[in-house]
Amino acid sequence: MKRPTIIDIAREVGVSKAAVSYALNGRGGVSARTRERILEVAAELGWRASSAARALSSDRAACVGIVLARSPEVLHTEPFFMQMVAGLERTLSEHGVSLQLALATDTATELATYQRWWAERRVDGVVVTDLRVSDPRPQLLRELGTPTVFFGTAEPMPGSSVLRVNENDVARAALAHLVELGHQRIGHVQGPRDLQHTVRREQALRAAARDFDVVISRAAGGYTEEGGVRATRRLLAARDRPTAIVYDNDVMAVAVVAGADDLGIGVPADLSVLAWDDSMLCRVVRPAVTAFAHGVAQDAATAARMLLELVETGAAEDGELSSRHLVPRASTAAR
Amino acid sequence: MKRPTIIDIAREVGVSKAAVSYALNGRGGVSARTRERILEVAAELGWRASSAARALSSDRAACVGIVLARSPEVLHTEPFFMQMVAGLERTLSEHGVSLQLALATDTATELATYQRWWAERRVDGVVVTDLRVSDPRPQLLRELGTPTVFFGTAEPMPGSSVLRVNENDVARAALAHLVELGHQRIGHVQGPRDLQHTVRREQALRAAARDFDVVISRAAGGYTEEGGVRATRRLLAARDRPTAIVYDNDVMAVAVVAGADDLGIGVPADLSVLAWDDSMLCRVVRPAVTAFAHGVAQDAATAARMLLELVETGAAEDGELSSRHLVPRASTAAR
Repeated sequence: MKRPTIIDIAREVGVSKAAVSYALNGRGGVSARTRERILEVAAELGWRASSAARALSSDRAACVGIVLARSPEVLHTEPFFMQMVAGLERTLSEHGVSLQLALATDTATELATYQRWWAERRVDGVVVTDLRVSDPRPQLLRELGTPTVFFGTAEPMPGSSVLRVNENDVARAALAHLVELGHQRIGHVQGPRDLQHTVRREQALRAAARDFDVVISRAAGGYTEEGGVRATRRLLAARDRPTAIVYDNDVMAVAVVAGADDLGIGVPADLSVLAWDDSMLCRVVRPAVTAFAHGVAQDAATAARMLLELVETGAAEDGELSSRHLVPRASTAAR
Repeated sequence: MKRPTIIDIAREVGVSKAAVSYALNGRGGVSARTRERILEVAAELGWRASSAARALSSDRAACVGIVLARSPEVLHTEPFFMQMVAGLERTLSEHGVSLQLALATDTATELATYQRWWAERRVDGVVVTDLRVSDPRPQLLRELGTPTVFFGTAEPMPGSSVLRVNENDVARAALAHLVELGHQRIGHVQGPRDLQHTVRREQALRAAARDFDVVISRAAGGYTEEGGVRATRRLLAARDRPTAIVYDNDVMAVAVVAGADDLGIGVPADLSVLAWDDSMLCRVVRPAVTAFAHGVAQDAATAARMLLELVETGAAEDGELSSRHLVPRASTAAR
């Protein structure tokens, strides 16, 4: 059974190919009775206009794209991306729109992907996440004219839709929790330094630290298990070592809790541990890790709706990512 | 900057649209010098044949699809799917082929997705995973004529490519490990009962149990944290309770280790725990979980290559999933 074509319908009904085309396109040229019979047979055979033909006529691909800019090795340890993809796809599929996916380990590959997708009309728009410092993607996508939703940035993007993130509330809630437990020297193990939200979180924690009158020391952990442990070792080697550390993701925080013996520390006896992202990892380690829960799938669904709206109407809108709330667990304690 | 069209090139070069079309399609009708100039300008403007136009002419979508048949909630806790997607995408992108993704929470939706993808020529082929008992998908895909790679099944699929899985070696290695530690009564907490590999693992463990002369008791855990804990509670309530349990995935095994206090047991003092799949989860809990490591991304890359071959040449071939090897950790011990 091949894909049914107009020729199959014509043969089955016993009319010309042109007659079928007229009927399916709702134009005149065939009798009402013939049209009815043609539509009936088309439905029986499971005929659909091919996406290629429709894309040519309507200039729509009925598909949106997302590039995941992490190495395959990091990708599968972070539940964030799968939640993101699941949330996007669920909403898109309700609107008959497909999701196209690509991985890119460097910016050049990612830019080339957007160019190719747009030039070949593979997508009607894209969702861009993990904005970087001096990010070339907004300019390229603006120049291409590709409808875009930026997921989790603080900057306005003229012509594009933005889901804004507010790191200040989280930073303040994190410090309030730790200060209440008596911590005065607090560490911050950061994600990759080229990401905007790494910079924003640093600024947010610094501002909050002034108000709470605590000292923050920093080290880059790069979101990986090994990086998180190394950065922790560096912070703990200082003379005024922190008694609590805030980690920019779940993977680094959990790696430190699991590797506490190797680090020669007790959690939370010597060090309280707090993660910016919650996940199953935080729940199953012992002590379980205090973390900020957030609705990634729900935010992704919002992003999908904003993109469909932007493609359909050209109207860009701004929104806010859902707020995070602290889930206190055993990894943070009074000092 | 809109997507460059043939009209833009014609305007820039100062020739007719037809001349550009002739030149780009490598047909006669324009001078060699004009053709050269047209190709130059086309390259400068970043022109590419739209995927829609190429799909119509070549009958290829340059895209393959995969449906992930889990609920979004389960999806992100299981690293398996992200590794799978990453492995597929990496290989496909090297061949200029895109990956289309859909989620489906029931079989009817999944079947409808394959029908729509194929009728609309959105994909050139699909990868199907998690084969079920009385699975309607192979028949539908055979009827549609969609090139298909079945990932991880034991049955031959005429006309399709198959990556076979051998559960017998894993079952035997699992029991060998536990028997050597002195375990005689062994539990098996299973995945969803409608999956072929749940049934195959049951058969494989039963056959191995005969040879090792041990007793196996079973309970269904459905791959979820809560299901795994509930199934464990049932097995431990029996008079001849098992002293070791094999779990069909990492999520269930890790949930039991993390919830051991609530279950009123010590791991491995009262119960040894072994997981069929390895992941970061198994590594970070305490005790860390003995598990079978396997190369999902590498197997996915193999599946992608087999599918490209099948689409290109129509030649179906069979292969084997890479073998799993036991990583002994602290969750299994002598009784």
